[in-house]
Amino acid sequence: MPALLESLVVTEVPGPISKVACKKLDQFFDSRAVHFVVDYDKSCGNYIVDVDGNRYLDVYSQIASIAVGYNNPALREAAQSPDVISALVNRPALGNFPSSRWHDTLKDGLLKVAPEGLNMIFTAQSGSEANELAYKAAFMLYRRKERGEGAGWTPEEVTSCVDNAKPGSPDLAILSFANSFHGRGFGSLSTTRSKAVHKLDIPSFHWPQAPFPALKYPLEKYTFENAAEEQRCLNEVERLITSWRFPVAGLVVEPIQSEGGDNHASPTFFQGLRGITKKHGVAMIVDEVQTGFGATGKFWGHAHWNLDSPPDMVTFSKKAQTAGYFFGDRMLVPDKAYRQFNTWIGDPARVAMSKAVINEILDKNLVEQCARVGKALYAELETLARKYPDLVMNLRGKGQGTYLAFDTKDAGALSKAMRLLGVNIGTCGKETVRLRPMLIFDESFIPALITALDKVLAST
Amino acid sequence: MPALLESLVVTEVPGPISKVACKKLDQFFDSRAVHFVVDYDKSCGNYIVDVDGNRYLDVYSQIASIAVGYNNPALREAAQSPDVISALVNRPALGNFPSSRWHDTLKDGLLKVAPEGLNMIFTAQSGSEANELAYKAAFMLYRRKERGEGAGWTPEEVTSCVDNAKPGSPDLAILSFANSFHGRGFGSLSTTRSKAVHKLDIPSFHWPQAPFPALKYPLEKYTFENAAEEQRCLNEVERLITSWRFPVAGLVVEPIQSEGGDNHASPTFFQGLRGITKKHGVAMIVDEVQTGFGATGKFWGHAHWNLDSPPDMVTFSKKAQTAGYFFGDRMLVPDKAYRQFNTWIGDPARVAMSKAVINEILDKNLVEQCARVGKALYAELETLARKYPDLVMNLRGKGQGTYLAFDTKDAGALSKAMRLLGVNIGTCGKETVRLRPMLIFDESFIPALITALDKVLAST
Repeated sequence: MPALLESLVVTEVPGPISKVACKKLDQFFDSRAVHFVVDYDKSCGNYIVDVDGNRYLDVYSQIASIAVGYNNPALREAAQSPDVISALVNRPALGNFPSSRWHDTLKDGLLKVAPEGLNMIFTAQSGSEANELAYKAAFMLYRRKERGEGAGWTPEEVTSCVDNAKPGSPDLAILSFANSFHGRGFGSLSTTRSKAVHKLDIPSFHWPQAPFPALKYPLEKYTFENAAEEQRCLNEVERLITSWRFPVAGLVVEPIQSEGGDNHASPTFFQGLRGITKKHGVAMIVDEVQTGFGATGKFWGHAHWNLDSPPDMVTFSKKAQTAGYFFGDRMLVPDKAYRQFNTWIGDPARVAMSKAVINEILDKNLVEQCARVGKALYAELETLARKYPDLVMNLRGKGQGTYLAFDTKDAGALSKAMRLLGVNIGTCGKETVRLRPMLIFDESFIPALITALDKVLAST
Repeated sequence: MPALLESLVVTEVPGPISKVACKKLDQFFDSRAVHFVVDYDKSCGNYIVDVDGNRYLDVYSQIASIAVGYNNPALREAAQSPDVISALVNRPALGNFPSSRWHDTLKDGLLKVAPEGLNMIFTAQSGSEANELAYKAAFMLYRRKERGEGAGWTPEEVTSCVDNAKPGSPDLAILSFANSFHGRGFGSLSTTRSKAVHKLDIPSFHWPQAPFPALKYPLEKYTFENAAEEQRCLNEVERLITSWRFPVAGLVVEPIQSEGGDNHASPTFFQGLRGITKKHGVAMIVDEVQTGFGATGKFWGHAHWNLDSPPDMVTFSKKAQTAGYFFGDRMLVPDKAYRQFNTWIGDPARVAMSKAVINEILDKNLVEQCARVGKALYAELETLARKYPDLVMNLRGKGQGTYLAFDTKDAGALSKAMRLLGVNIGTCGKETVRLRPMLIFDESFIPALITALDKVLAST
């Protein structure tokens, strides 16, 4: 699907109609973060169209959540399939009364892209929920091992847990990294470390955070320093695991820290994490909510690491259009039914939509395409970085598909200026511009993006 | 829609086809809690049909989540509407890029049934998430008042919260009640107190639990004792709020404790809670995840209380087919954007389905019907209670629509025996049978339910 359309901005952004619509909505629904109100009927492929008739090349993609384009015909077909209609109309309590269709919906969809070695799944509705369910599985596994197989629950455990007290409610931790983002529930937020705006005033668990490697760019120039920095962080991870005031049952890490600023680390670092977690019996949870589903040029971000043994759990959401976690060890299924449970356990309508997304990705070889397009896009950005060394800094994501980012002086202003030129682009971290094009962003869209960036940078 | 169909059980339950399907599913999806695998295409109205061809009158309704019947034609139509298809295919990040449709979807749906005095909404995807978001709103409001309007965040707050430390991550509590159920996230689970199976091994916040009134039945007989019991609990609530080791920012309560055993309290008790929470500046959160949407004979369970001023927040899910919380005080919108936020903020496809459910309920006067049917059903159960005084105990829910329950000797065995007679019925608490028929359960279905119950009780 090459770039037949073009960006077209005919009003200020947001335009007058967007502003009125926003004000109306704000009467009962907080609209302060709205960039513009969208006419999804007119949006198509890589282009998002607002109610003022402005058309933007969308390289933000609903905070990295659209894989195969607006109004993708295969998705429209799936939305009208008997599977989806039935799941919408007859929403099941999946754990008690699953549909006869559920097995195949999973098998022909999410299970087809299960990370290597992880052939079981628990479904959820958001990235936050997926991570929290993974944390719960890690805690139950930790205590199961500690308790010893076959050992029952003590009366004291049963009574105390209802009172939120030990030993039933144990002090156990999930370790996460500085600048990470893992969601906004009370457990997931306790592992999120990126920004005060997410965390302030919300009670948190006293869980440890390790430093995440602060790599220097270009990588070729700082090989030695970066290796030392990664080793320093690994040492700190191990120190925290062995010395935290209570046991660390799990470790959660993003393949690329996204909301926190598109921070990368090398496969060696992640191999080190796998080694340390195995050594100390800590469940390794890879949060692929943003990196999963192809945008790094591989289906899963952690596939870049060449691990000897897979992570214990991999969580997903966003581009999947649904959420959950994959796992391989049956011991992660708790000892009794109803421990990992809730009324809906995800949404089979969304899981069926996910199947359509997956099949579209596989049929059209979009992951391979993304790897290829990423190389070309990176080369163009490198040219801009040479042209504007003070405005395009620390270019990163080489070899990681279109999952590219750079630091600049005022990322918010750049994003705003880009919108006026018809490109919807996102930011993250402190002053980082992150590219999150869809997987259908092919080479034909590169010139429009680069031209707009060049213009904005030239006028900065 | 009268009872044209009849229950029909032709195999053991679960039947052989269900068992095989279950085993197949269990290879990658924990299926230990599955009662039977469902053929939703054949299910209709109040009847659920399994893959073995067994047809059950369903008075459990997907753990109280189906309001207007399987394959309801109005819902089938909604599922194929442009609104739903667009939302399925083009899933927005609602806080940044809402659809031009979003305002009307809310206004003509959820907002139409907003609890009195609560005309704003935040949408979510599950009851657990709805409650956690309400807790977060309560915490941010508490600190906002404490900080004083216009006071900014201190550098120390901003830094410490990222480290999960004070003062940015304060020690603040949500008070909940013994035997309550409010969900399974780390925050919501910290307020859930019903059963060890939900809580064991999961770290919890040190939040207080107050006793919930243990009323004696029949109510007419124990007026004095019950009033004293409720006063005792109110005293304990106030004592906990004023003496807990850190401030209590919110209190969460179900109008009828559901998962915890269908425990009721009088309007006087809830009026007392409203008084205490107002007096001490504690946000009162009413969890209507199970009680909301008509089954108590009023649209909202708390509408039975005749409060002088509305609760601060009311959460919903289940029959709504989506989730979220209503609120009235604009101060509950945090001081800055992005504090109460996440990528999806609910699912507009499900919110559009919710609109269809709501309009079906209103068009067909199903809440009024439920109130009327509840009276007739209660009378029949009273007759059974007189006939089997040792097996139908503490009958409760009079005047609360079809939200009826009784204690028995072995609720699990009763539920199993009922399934063999073609009635799918749920349990809760320790040995409680809970009725959760749909709102389309009219008088014509009462005989089938009562006859089956009578048979099972007679043979116990």
